[in-house]
Amino acid sequence: MEETTFAVLGTGGIGRRTLEVSRHKEGLTPVAACDRHGTAIDFDGLDVDELLAATEGNIDSDPGDVATDGGAATADGEGVKQHGEDRGVVASEQARPSDDPIRDVIDRGERIDAVLLALPNYEHDFIPRVADRFLEGGYDGVLVDVLKRSRVIGMLDDREEALEEAGITFVCGAGATPGLLTGAAALAAQSFIEIESVEIRWGVGLESGYEDNRGTVREDIAHLPDYDIETARGLSAAEIEAIVDDHDGVIEFEDMEHADDVLLERAGVCDAEDVTVGGLLDVRSDEKPTTTTVSVTGTTFDGERGTNTFRLDDATSMAANVNGPALGYLRAGVRRNRAGEYGVVGPAELMPRF
Amino acid sequence: MEETTFAVLGTGGIGRRTLEVSRHKEGLTPVAACDRHGTAIDFDGLDVDELLAATEGNIDSDPGDVATDGGAATADGEGVKQHGEDRGVVASEQARPSDDPIRDVIDRGERIDAVLLALPNYEHDFIPRVADRFLEGGYDGVLVDVLKRSRVIGMLDDREEALEEAGITFVCGAGATPGLLTGAAALAAQSFIEIESVEIRWGVGLESGYEDNRGTVREDIAHLPDYDIETARGLSAAEIEAIVDDHDGVIEFEDMEHADDVLLERAGVCDAEDVTVGGLLDVRSDEKPTTTTVSVTGTTFDGERGTNTFRLDDATSMAANVNGPALGYLRAGVRRNRAGEYGVVGPAELMPRF
Repeated sequence: MEETTFAVLGTGGIGRRTLEVSRHKEGLTPVAACDRHGTAIDFDGLDVDELLAATEGNIDSDPGDVATDGGAATADGEGVKQHGEDRGVVASEQARPSDDPIRDVIDRGERIDAVLLALPNYEHDFIPRVADRFLEGGYDGVLVDVLKRSRVIGMLDDREEALEEAGITFVCGAGATPGLLTGAAALAAQSFIEIESVEIRWGVGLESGYEDNRGTVREDIAHLPDYDIETARGLSAAEIEAIVDDHDGVIEFEDMEHADDVLLERAGVCDAEDVTVGGLLDVRSDEKPTTTTVSVTGTTFDGERGTNTFRLDDATSMAANVNGPALGYLRAGVRRNRAGEYGVVGPAELMPRF
Repeated sequence: MEETTFAVLGTGGIGRRTLEVSRHKEGLTPVAACDRHGTAIDFDGLDVDELLAATEGNIDSDPGDVATDGGAATADGEGVKQHGEDRGVVASEQARPSDDPIRDVIDRGERIDAVLLALPNYEHDFIPRVADRFLEGGYDGVLVDVLKRSRVIGMLDDREEALEEAGITFVCGAGATPGLLTGAAALAAQSFIEIESVEIRWGVGLESGYEDNRGTVREDIAHLPDYDIETARGLSAAEIEAIVDDHDGVIEFEDMEHADDVLLERAGVCDAEDVTVGGLLDVRSDEKPTTTTVSVTGTTFDGERGTNTFRLDDATSMAANVNGPALGYLRAGVRRNRAGEYGVVGPAELMPRF
């Protein structure tokens, strides 16, 4: 297994769990982790135990803007549980405060095969603007995001030529959905010559992971009928709690704008409009309120209609289903990048490595 | 979608159905089809309707040796239902008799992006020897097989360097199992950090496809406890019928030597010995005797044990589940080849294109 070095932008739930999962994978070395407060870099490999312990609970769910202000600490910081004097990643003895943590990573980009963007997407053009910074900075490795919103893919496609010229392989939508479940849909579609529908229905029980995943919950709330990404961004922690209370802790989502649709259309599997994503989020239990299932219905060449299904065991947490695939797609992306394949690639086109 | 030309070696059940399925896929042009009797070539695209109609029932289940005798007609030809004077593909007005159909294809290899080896594997080194012919002939495109036996992968790996030097991308095990189901297992494994077991259990109902798939049935019989590939090869059609009768038309297979095991090990998913393949074949009904299911059991990074599953609808025939993926992997292989990635690649590493 070839050696792969990677950095994590963002030390919230996804970033932290990805670091944790990477310890169980051969040949994967985390060499940098940053949040808006600072940067930890060690090319011998970060001490993940120390970093996770030092930043335990240091989740910053304040929707500031890392892309434009370079990650400088912003005003309120509500949601950052401090651990001593230092905020965020700086609580780790491996980290130093920084005015521009993204620049820190880009400046060392030659030794970093891949960068996982584990940042909540509070603005539609947030991830694309982070990509711009890597483009401007002359990075030529792999960028991986776990973005959700369909409209972001078009913004990345607008940068396709620039990414190709720069030698960047951008793996987009590399979490659970979009991600693992998009890939499962693309695979399940192979039995058919025409796809009628792809239904992705997820269940997440998040009691013990709630603290770590407030950013994800905020993003999910933006999918509710009465909210959008702007209004969700403006919600205080207390307002989010009130919404959770209103739903007795279990929130149902229908017709979510998840990029599975455009990623499947992009791969030629079906029209985006044939894809529906919905789910049930329970923040008061670790039990999943429903079994995460992908159902692909289509017609075979011999005229039969059928539904192939992919099911995740209820025992597999959201974290397991996001972070394993994120690292799998990261490794697959590095392989593509080394082979000289640049531009935007999605989970319906790429088999993640184990 | 980039245009892809392809050839099919073998006009038995798999070869014929692949031609049929390709008509439903955009950008895929079948330009050559051959069997041991002759070759049909047309770079404007074969007339698949004519070819299938002319060769209807022309299935040659005689286990001769295309690799060494260049496809020259061998003695008995039992199992070839003739359609007029001509045998096999030569019954089509697009085909001409040939002493060496593989050579015919190799000689025109520059215009053929991919070659599907749709030949039953009556000897362990059969597919590797066909690969040798393409290597010797200077072919530099994609070879795709739907082989089953684990031990063949090692023989292909022995040729890895030669394939890389020649510029050949060899996609091995690109049918249903190994193939689609191997890929599903690799994907399902992403939730876990350690895999305990991969169980592939298939169901095939083959009444209406029995005539077309005698070669596949013969290969399957070689997996029964009292048989091996040599003894199965020596069975007459009447002896095969007697075995089918003994099992009342439904044959159960356990611990089959299917290459899913080594292909998953090769991709780093698990040890080959953790993979089991079995199935139920009913040649007297088109209903599947059991639902084809892949079950991947493992442990997550957060210490939970679970089983992710992938299920094919009972309405999807073996043909749909072999030939759709075969073409999907063929297209994915062509993309890799054009990007300069050569050597041996399996379905646990490659997402098929739709």
